[in-house]
Amino acid sequence: MFIDDTIAAVATAPGEAGIGIVRLSGPKALDIANKIFKPIKGNTDLSMQVRKLVYGHVYDQDKVIDEVLISYMKKPHTFTREDVVEINCHGGYISVRKILEAVIRNGARLADRGEFTKRAFLNGRIDLSQAEAIIDIINAKTNASFDIAQKHLEGNLSASIKQIRDKLTMDLAKITVAIDFPEEDEPEVTYEELSVDLREVMTSIKGLIASFETGKILRDGLKTVIVGKPNVGKSSLLNAILKESRAIVTEIEGTTRDIIEEYVNIGGIPLKIVDTAGIRETDDLVEKIGVQKSKESFESADLVIMMLDSSRHLSNQDQDILSLLGDKKAIILVNKTDLPSMVTDDEIHNYAKGKPIIRISALEKKGIDLLEKEIENMVLEGSLKTQNDIMVTNARHKMALERAFEACSDALTALADNIPLDIAETDFKNAWNELGHITGDTVSEDLLDTIFREFCIGK
Amino acid sequence: MFIDDTIAAVATAPGEAGIGIVRLSGPKALDIANKIFKPIKGNTDLSMQVRKLVYGHVYDQDKVIDEVLISYMKKPHTFTREDVVEINCHGGYISVRKILEAVIRNGARLADRGEFTKRAFLNGRIDLSQAEAIIDIINAKTNASFDIAQKHLEGNLSASIKQIRDKLTMDLAKITVAIDFPEEDEPEVTYEELSVDLREVMTSIKGLIASFETGKILRDGLKTVIVGKPNVGKSSLLNAILKESRAIVTEIEGTTRDIIEEYVNIGGIPLKIVDTAGIRETDDLVEKIGVQKSKESFESADLVIMMLDSSRHLSNQDQDILSLLGDKKAIILVNKTDLPSMVTDDEIHNYAKGKPIIRISALEKKGIDLLEKEIENMVLEGSLKTQNDIMVTNARHKMALERAFEACSDALTALADNIPLDIAETDFKNAWNELGHITGDTVSEDLLDTIFREFCIGK
Repeated sequence: MFIDDTIAAVATAPGEAGIGIVRLSGPKALDIANKIFKPIKGNTDLSMQVRKLVYGHVYDQDKVIDEVLISYMKKPHTFTREDVVEINCHGGYISVRKILEAVIRNGARLADRGEFTKRAFLNGRIDLSQAEAIIDIINAKTNASFDIAQKHLEGNLSASIKQIRDKLTMDLAKITVAIDFPEEDEPEVTYEELSVDLREVMTSIKGLIASFETGKILRDGLKTVIVGKPNVGKSSLLNAILKESRAIVTEIEGTTRDIIEEYVNIGGIPLKIVDTAGIRETDDLVEKIGVQKSKESFESADLVIMMLDSSRHLSNQDQDILSLLGDKKAIILVNKTDLPSMVTDDEIHNYAKGKPIIRISALEKKGIDLLEKEIENMVLEGSLKTQNDIMVTNARHKMALERAFEACSDALTALADNIPLDIAETDFKNAWNELGHITGDTVSEDLLDTIFREFCIGK
Repeated sequence: MFIDDTIAAVATAPGEAGIGIVRLSGPKALDIANKIFKPIKGNTDLSMQVRKLVYGHVYDQDKVIDEVLISYMKKPHTFTREDVVEINCHGGYISVRKILEAVIRNGARLADRGEFTKRAFLNGRIDLSQAEAIIDIINAKTNASFDIAQKHLEGNLSASIKQIRDKLTMDLAKITVAIDFPEEDEPEVTYEELSVDLREVMTSIKGLIASFETGKILRDGLKTVIVGKPNVGKSSLLNAILKESRAIVTEIEGTTRDIIEEYVNIGGIPLKIVDTAGIRETDDLVEKIGVQKSKESFESADLVIMMLDSSRHLSNQDQDILSLLGDKKAIILVNKTDLPSMVTDDEIHNYAKGKPIIRISALEKKGIDLLEKEIENMVLEGSLKTQNDIMVTNARHKMALERAFEACSDALTALADNIPLDIAETDFKNAWNELGHITGDTVSEDLLDTIFREFCIGK
């Protein structure tokens, strides 16, 4: 792992804006800055202006590229623990690109995705779970996911893992002594003591694993498909949700231009609404994409909200769609309670047995609270309250926890079976290693590559 | 005009990125920062850390919002000439928004579009044409437009206007003396002297006005429609242009999701290619949107590039489109010279008389240079060389220059007609005022509002 070169990238999002930032990190950061930057006060020595915003111009040979504020941050008190230079220039597409080109011509290398954060990890500023929290912070689309990631960055997950791991470390030390000095009259540690510790460790791990279901939803949102005929009130529903909960709506363009994702908050649960473009236009998603496609979209969804118009009888198509719901987590939302009802619960249950039916008036904003409660009940099974505790949101962490739990369980069995200590020791070590994968105390380069590939460039 | 409050906005573009910035400007900037920010080194006093990046956390009550680098810049040595605080936080959607909400809760007001720059102007840091250059820098999509805007920001246009205006100022002073002391034997100024000055001023103004045609194209790009049947080679053409000129391609999403603009550079001239989505997919734009629509798209274009496939005979539709070109600036680009030619220039000129015909092989990248030259000749009439001179790119500036020219011309006529000096004086003053509108020395609040409304928020 070479980290002796100097990397550079645009650290701000592309687009028209007041400010853009080009960031450098590495041993030549200051050198490169000095080559392209001329301060307004000619005699300013950047190396003497640590952490100061210095005003001047970036040049390409003799031509001004842009006026900038530059700052030099000296290692090790930086994000990467290396020398860092940040160049604040005008926003927009051209200035940052020209400056980036200039720093690269002068000896920097274009940073890989997440490479600044990777260096922060490799240089010991943050552990691996904190590095992963940074990408979660940046990618967060909802307050809930942001808050959890922020806590992870502060280190609450790391601390919890460390606490569990420390217990195993101590046990391992005792085991080593017991193995090395078996002749002692009073053994360093009893099987009973070790079993108590293991049970405690397993309880802690189990709690963390259990938080994942909720954590994942809070992080990624609940992929929700809303279906219903035109004029059934899909956009009124969204508006009502927005009004009700002062919710976030963030339109995120997908990888293709056709797919738009939208996030709304309902009762603290972020719903990631799929195919909103269609919904907004009150198109009939179902008619448009056909029954087969509906089925497919159901399959990839965490939750289906099927909207019916209570002022109309069930159509054949409504019946078809209802029948498709099957085992899917689904809510039948009967809208327009402000009009006389033409649909009974029994009729609906004929086609979608057991699915909860909620009656609302999106127009009058009545019943939205019932929908919120139903979503909370059905999806989180009341576990949303744990939001303030430590929460695992990352599938990688969850899997490591599961493997650690497994290893502890093996150790416990071995102890119960009075198997020699050096065999149980292996299980202890496995558990200890798996927990180390979360914080990066024990980690392979491949894993690092996989993790940091998910980052954006410039972070 | 109140500028005694404190404004705040997100200064970076929205999106997932390493860094986001929230900027404050105004008398309470430091106060507000102190309310929401806690430095890691508890005893750090922000007011003593002028222009320093201070590490710490932004809080919402007792809850950490994000870890940040904050910098306090003391007036008057700031962009706005007011106290400025910049908060560098994690990029993404949530952090900047939460921090912005926190500063607003603590007494800042959400900045209007361009309000930071407006304050820089009102407080005398930059003149109006420089303020306008800032928006051009941010909006620039090509190197050419960026470079011109950068020169305007450096003040080359302002200096040129000032020079012209200074001459009028001196003349006005002399005229005043001559009017006030008509009894002097030797008059302060002769009609002849004034006429000489006027002619000089008019020549300078004329030069600036003449630069507008090119300046506008370099700033805004040449709105170009490329039409042609599927497989005629539209995307090969674009690729060839890109290869040839190491050109910029920036995909900018329009106000609707359907319209995509793309910029390519051809021989230094930015072409703003319209409907590129269609072109990229080698759809038949013409068939898709119909002949009538083609005509409409031609009308709004500065340049039409009609592509033909030289290996095929002209179709009826080709003929129809060729006939539609009319007086439009258009180039007939006959592609696939690598294959035997089935189309003669005469045939083409039957339908599109007098239009230049360029034969290329986009595949073999042959003839692209001819296309470049033709575009330069036909659109800029060879005037691209003036790129290094002062160039007017802003329609507002051009109009003010035209009115100033008109006023000078009136003054000249008045002098030639031996009309009393106080009448000519009015014309001198009008010209002087109009030039002042460009730099903002004479300007109304309405005009300012109009100008700064074009800015993005946060600048």
